[in-house]
Amino acid sequence: MSVDLHYHGDRDLAPGLVDLAVNVRLPAPPPWLADVIADSLRDLGRYPDPTPAVLAVAARHGVGPESVLPTAGGAEAFTLVARAVPGQRPVVVHPQFTEPEAALLAAGREVGRHLLRRDDGFRLDPGAFSRTGQHADAELVVVGNPTNPTGVLHRAADLRAMRRPGRVLIVDEAFMDAVPGEPESLIGPDLEGLLVIRSLTKTWGLAGLRAGYVVGDPALVASLRAVQPPWSVSSPAVAATVACLSDRAVAEAEAAALTVAAHREVLVRELAAVGVTSIAPSRAPFVLVDTSPLGTASVRGDLARLGFAVRRGETFPGLGPTWIRLAVRDPDTSRAVAAALDTLRRLRRVA
Amino acid sequence: MSVDLHYHGDRDLAPGLVDLAVNVRLPAPPPWLADVIADSLRDLGRYPDPTPAVLAVAARHGVGPESVLPTAGGAEAFTLVARAVPGQRPVVVHPQFTEPEAALLAAGREVGRHLLRRDDGFRLDPGAFSRTGQHADAELVVVGNPTNPTGVLHRAADLRAMRRPGRVLIVDEAFMDAVPGEPESLIGPDLEGLLVIRSLTKTWGLAGLRAGYVVGDPALVASLRAVQPPWSVSSPAVAATVACLSDRAVAEAEAAALTVAAHREVLVRELAAVGVTSIAPSRAPFVLVDTSPLGTASVRGDLARLGFAVRRGETFPGLGPTWIRLAVRDPDTSRAVAAALDTLRRLRRVA
Repeated sequence: MSVDLHYHGDRDLAPGLVDLAVNVRLPAPPPWLADVIADSLRDLGRYPDPTPAVLAVAARHGVGPESVLPTAGGAEAFTLVARAVPGQRPVVVHPQFTEPEAALLAAGREVGRHLLRRDDGFRLDPGAFSRTGQHADAELVVVGNPTNPTGVLHRAADLRAMRRPGRVLIVDEAFMDAVPGEPESLIGPDLEGLLVIRSLTKTWGLAGLRAGYVVGDPALVASLRAVQPPWSVSSPAVAATVACLSDRAVAEAEAAALTVAAHREVLVRELAAVGVTSIAPSRAPFVLVDTSPLGTASVRGDLARLGFAVRRGETFPGLGPTWIRLAVRDPDTSRAVAAALDTLRRLRRVA
Repeated sequence: MSVDLHYHGDRDLAPGLVDLAVNVRLPAPPPWLADVIADSLRDLGRYPDPTPAVLAVAARHGVGPESVLPTAGGAEAFTLVARAVPGQRPVVVHPQFTEPEAALLAAGREVGRHLLRRDDGFRLDPGAFSRTGQHADAELVVVGNPTNPTGVLHRAADLRAMRRPGRVLIVDEAFMDAVPGEPESLIGPDLEGLLVIRSLTKTWGLAGLRAGYVVGDPALVASLRAVQPPWSVSSPAVAATVACLSDRAVAEAEAAALTVAAHREVLVRELAAVGVTSIAPSRAPFVLVDTSPLGTASVRGDLARLGFAVRRGETFPGLGPTWIRLAVRDPDTSRAVAAALDTLRRLRRVA
């Protein structure tokens, strides 16, 4: 099935709709962070210097600066990976954020897919990547954790088991800072053959600013750095990165993650009450559901008519038009979208 | 001669020095522009949408939107060109901003050089790129206009004469908005086989924000767009681009360009008075001079001891350590740096 890999949730938005399509927690950064960014504007005549961001990331994660590369959001990181990380037979684990595959294709590389199955709850079996597995010869593997759009949090042990000499493992942890305690993150003392991609845009309302970073094997990080355009990370993004990795900000993110987890329970419960269940338990700030109990067509158009924007599923390899991804919002919003789905359910029952 | 192509003027700066090393006109954007950028922060939770910038560039230059691509500064544009524009035997005209060559090398391409000569006043002879010229087979040619660091403004007719079927011409016009009237710009109705790269960072004090754009052949622009990471241009950069291309801003840039031209005359005159002359008349907001009348070594260290940072020449192919590039500043600053050079001249005479 050919899908538009460049389709993202922001395109499912329309003026006036309640936004459950885009996985950004805040419409704008909190005031203390907005102040930091505004302060950085006073110095915009100077070329950006990423050093403070490098040091902040290194301190936050307890790694050396040689393991760190700030990027203009996660999207730039995938482009750098596609251009600079060698490896025959790259494989992307799907359903997953589509930019890694799009970036590999744009770099002229052939990409294999490993499709996780709904019957397995989109669970990852590292055996497929073992010496006797289907993807034994994949020298570059990309996987998301927690995975967008399924919300599944893979076990760090399973991910580590996928590493092999001669293979680079890319773990997209763009939403890991929304998981309380970040229990399955692969950032740690052993970064060999590994690149972990992080985003600051979701938790901090910085999607418009482009701020993220890579932590990984110093040799691989050096090869990304070698192809990154100079001054790629703007001065406001450097300032925001430093601020978002302060102890205070990390504590605030952890508190926010706990709130999101509580709000997610509400969303899941409300959806279940109207007959729409998620296949796998989500640990992310969004929930993927199959709406086929409501009919065989997409509910997206009808939901928009009732005032709600949700992320379409059909542009994720392995999913289809009955799948929708909903961002976790406050309980009132979750109840409202569940009520809208209930309305659709009842209308179809009558028809 | 092997030089560090990633060396830029910002690295010649040091705290406390008067900055003549970096070609940025303002330490920060003017208040009206800073306000526009600050306003854009309110919406940072949204992913950037480049459309308003595309339309503003198209309106400013009288071209169709299909001819326009906003970029994260000129540096990103060179990376996109290196990756997406085909062409055997790329040639970069030097001395020139080194990032185009660095980007081509990072993309794994072999790069030829065409060195303009000081004896010719760094003048461009398009004959070298004709069917019988030395670079007849170059399918990709990069040239700066006005050229950094020489300040030479090539004639549009000469540049157009370098075009040929099967060849793409890249013109780096990063400083063209500092030339009153922009007389030799190649942006116009005939963009076939052409990509013109523009920057907004120099005139508007936006080096830290990363804002620029490409105008050119729609087919070539489409190929750049295909490899550009999504959301590459931040929302503040989109807002700044729109603001900097308004009629009012363009008029302000033109007035600034006239002031720079007057101030450049002062700088050139003051330098000549102490025996340091530019080889070619500069039309850019900087002047390249050969300090060899003051001795065979670089004056850069001594100038720093006297409080002035200037851009070293030795990292530009075709130049050497006796060359320095000086940004055009106000007349007092120009008189002061000339006086410092005069001091060095007198000390060497005594020695």
